[in-house]
Amino acid sequence: MKNLADIGLIGLAVMGENLVLNMESKGYTVAVYNRTVEKVDHFVNGRGAGKNFIPAHTIEDFVSKLERPRKAMMLVKAGQPVDDFIELLIPHLEPGDIIIDGGNSLYTDTIRRTKYVESKGLLYIGTGVSGGEEGALKGPSMMPGGSPEAWPHVKDIFQAVAAKVEDGSPCCDWVGENGAGHYVKMIHNGIEYGDMQIINEAYHIMKDLLGMSADEQHEVFKKWNTEELDSYLIEITRDILAFKDEDGEPLVEKILDTAGQKGTGKWTVVSALDCGIPLTLIGESVFSRCLSAQKDLRVAASKVLRGPAPQFEGDKQQMIDDLKMALYGAKIISYAQGYDLMMEAAKEHNWNLNLGGIALMWRGGCIIRSVFLGDIKKAFDNNPNLRNLLLDPLFAEKISAAQEGWRRVCAAAISNGIPVPALSSALCYFDGFRSERLPANLLQAQRDYFGAHTYERIDQPRGKFFHTNWTGHGGDTTSNSYVV
Amino acid sequence: MKNLADIGLIGLAVMGENLVLNMESKGYTVAVYNRTVEKVDHFVNGRGAGKNFIPAHTIEDFVSKLERPRKAMMLVKAGQPVDDFIELLIPHLEPGDIIIDGGNSLYTDTIRRTKYVESKGLLYIGTGVSGGEEGALKGPSMMPGGSPEAWPHVKDIFQAVAAKVEDGSPCCDWVGENGAGHYVKMIHNGIEYGDMQIINEAYHIMKDLLGMSADEQHEVFKKWNTEELDSYLIEITRDILAFKDEDGEPLVEKILDTAGQKGTGKWTVVSALDCGIPLTLIGESVFSRCLSAQKDLRVAASKVLRGPAPQFEGDKQQMIDDLKMALYGAKIISYAQGYDLMMEAAKEHNWNLNLGGIALMWRGGCIIRSVFLGDIKKAFDNNPNLRNLLLDPLFAEKISAAQEGWRRVCAAAISNGIPVPALSSALCYFDGFRSERLPANLLQAQRDYFGAHTYERIDQPRGKFFHTNWTGHGGDTTSNSYVV
Repeated sequence: MKNLADIGLIGLAVMGENLVLNMESKGYTVAVYNRTVEKVDHFVNGRGAGKNFIPAHTIEDFVSKLERPRKAMMLVKAGQPVDDFIELLIPHLEPGDIIIDGGNSLYTDTIRRTKYVESKGLLYIGTGVSGGEEGALKGPSMMPGGSPEAWPHVKDIFQAVAAKVEDGSPCCDWVGENGAGHYVKMIHNGIEYGDMQIINEAYHIMKDLLGMSADEQHEVFKKWNTEELDSYLIEITRDILAFKDEDGEPLVEKILDTAGQKGTGKWTVVSALDCGIPLTLIGESVFSRCLSAQKDLRVAASKVLRGPAPQFEGDKQQMIDDLKMALYGAKIISYAQGYDLMMEAAKEHNWNLNLGGIALMWRGGCIIRSVFLGDIKKAFDNNPNLRNLLLDPLFAEKISAAQEGWRRVCAAAISNGIPVPALSSALCYFDGFRSERLPANLLQAQRDYFGAHTYERIDQPRGKFFHTNWTGHGGDTTSNSYVV
Repeated sequence: MKNLADIGLIGLAVMGENLVLNMESKGYTVAVYNRTVEKVDHFVNGRGAGKNFIPAHTIEDFVSKLERPRKAMMLVKAGQPVDDFIELLIPHLEPGDIIIDGGNSLYTDTIRRTKYVESKGLLYIGTGVSGGEEGALKGPSMMPGGSPEAWPHVKDIFQAVAAKVEDGSPCCDWVGENGAGHYVKMIHNGIEYGDMQIINEAYHIMKDLLGMSADEQHEVFKKWNTEELDSYLIEITRDILAFKDEDGEPLVEKILDTAGQKGTGKWTVVSALDCGIPLTLIGESVFSRCLSAQKDLRVAASKVLRGPAPQFEGDKQQMIDDLKMALYGAKIISYAQGYDLMMEAAKEHNWNLNLGGIALMWRGGCIIRSVFLGDIKKAFDNNPNLRNLLLDPLFAEKISAAQEGWRRVCAAAISNGIPVPALSSALCYFDGFRSERLPANLLQAQRDYFGAHTYERIDQPRGKFFHTNWTGHGGDTTSNSYVV
């Protein structure tokens, strides 16, 4: 074993253990440290026994065991612990050494930390790591950003441990400056919220409108997972639906219908609001989790508020096919919205995002991995300046083909009282996005009426503002427009 | 004229001028100051000539002309200017004097400023003022919060200038501690976004699905304004639709369909995300403005993405009646969501909100004023502990009656490619809210599958968490649940 480690990791929870085991299996020597020091010994004598790990019992000891430039990676709880470890590390590091945060940090924290750490003559990387415990061990998706000079020093290690797609390309590449890596990880998580929500809505329709058993649903998801919806989340839904509780009944039906939110999904929507980008599908997905959490209120409401009794009279197989189209169309919208947001954020933060590369990073290893992401990669390969995914010829064709079934699904759900907030919101966005003309002209008239906010005209150049005295003075209702 | 003024106002833009003219007309003497001092003289020699105004040319001068306890009100741009004037005022004020911010400040700023100003031995009020220029002059809706000890000193002036409802009650009452007043004003603005958006969607359907002329639409809004939708925004929409441009065509059709957002509507949605309250209708309304602003992208998309050609084959009058029900149902949802958020924020900030009083404050004077708000007032009068507007017997009955037409509207719009993001999102919320069981059980299963996040069970007490080894080891698929 080498005397000095190629990289060091602070934080031996399950994710951390699995990630260093992954690194070691690729031929790297890894120094390990944990705040509760017993965990270090427990690990090197347990899962890490006989492997190339160098235990450290103090931060000083840890740093001294790293080859220069030192690469000190943290996998600790987001927030204050990250700042604390940065402070502990800095006094022991030398110019050119690299601090890496692999946790789920808020990108604005990473922007701040990159600046701070660079001001000390050091380099900083904030990297998203997705794939859960299993991904950390077998190959996660990694989205590093921070100090560009740091990338060449960690590239080989990161790409060695990352998941690979069919052609061997690693699901890890440089994302961009300062907080870009954590921003892209945040968008990933937002999209994960959306993908899960639309699957939930499909499940709801199958169960309550089509009256399908969990086994029947399992068969549908099994088939879908061999077609254009092929993805990790469809795959695990297939498995979940087949899983029986001890009494032989589907376990999923015994689970309480309340979901938490507060983290990255919420951050994604706040960022969209800040950037002024319509991120409706993920927004509805976050709010749907909030509504699910209001279980007591819903139970009370269910006794007071009545709706139609769901009854489906059409062709069941047709509706199942339509559902696939609804999921597919909504999924295109979700990614189009997520990419729209990333492009806008990149402008605001001066990030040079590699948009196709991001699709490749998500193609494997992470929770939203799917064959679909290969098409997104292709779209940006074909046109690196693509302004919106929906303008890509392939996606334009696919979403156009999906819309008929998608509309039938939403209309049927709405008529039958089954909530489809994400599927219908995405469809409304599609219809709004493809509208040369939206009704916001009336909105501008209203704002001008009550607040003299002025408006532009379709028959005048942009940037020329008009105000109308809508009420007229004393009943005089002739137009009174002027340029303000 | 008195030597000392009852109240002083800093900031003589149109809103400020109108508000002091209103105060003066109610018998109060008002000191006026403006950063650009010429405006002061211009005002007292112009619109304010011969009236009980005391001009001031410096802050010191301004303060010296106020009766104690001094009431120094600012109507300046939100943000730094408010902090700047607070700093300018403090050295000249004495214990018990009151600084009042009547601008559109973010409530968290008002929380901070209340604490700061109180630490100097002074009192602070942050008050929402709604109603635009005309409201400021003739009677706005006012929503004051801050230091409770300040309220008795401004109550008479504020309630004198505020709008009055039919029985003479003023649309102004004490809202609550520190930032509560500005918070409630923010919610007001969020609801305003929502009310405008659903009217926009109705207009869109009338125009593009029913093929109605602006004059025909005008007649519908005219009728609606005499029924349960009677409100300021329906009234001005009626007027706008009748307004002709110089060429005799409806002016509204010449207005560019791009709307701005970034202010209070956005803040409302961010607060909802922070509080974990599903505020979907306002969320969709903010995002709809964002999408309207992407005009160039929409024009490009309209050439690539095709949808169904709208064609309506049903009974037109029925659809118009259904539209009224859709607006009415969605409006109930919007207010229910807004109140839900206010209740949660009140808990988090320890505000004693007077929920019925807020409905009364909004009943007149402001942009969202409507007869509808009288029913909300009644709901809280009947049950001050009402947990949600939708559980009020009257609203429960009304929304149940509205849903049939509302569903037809959304289904028709979605089938015909006309975007109804707010109307349909509200309906999906209604269907979710009245669901004892939502599909979030599948979501919890997914989270437990990929992240071991654990779940609760419907047949076990709340707070007991389970984890399942969903994949089973080596194909063993028996249940393996345990309490973690």
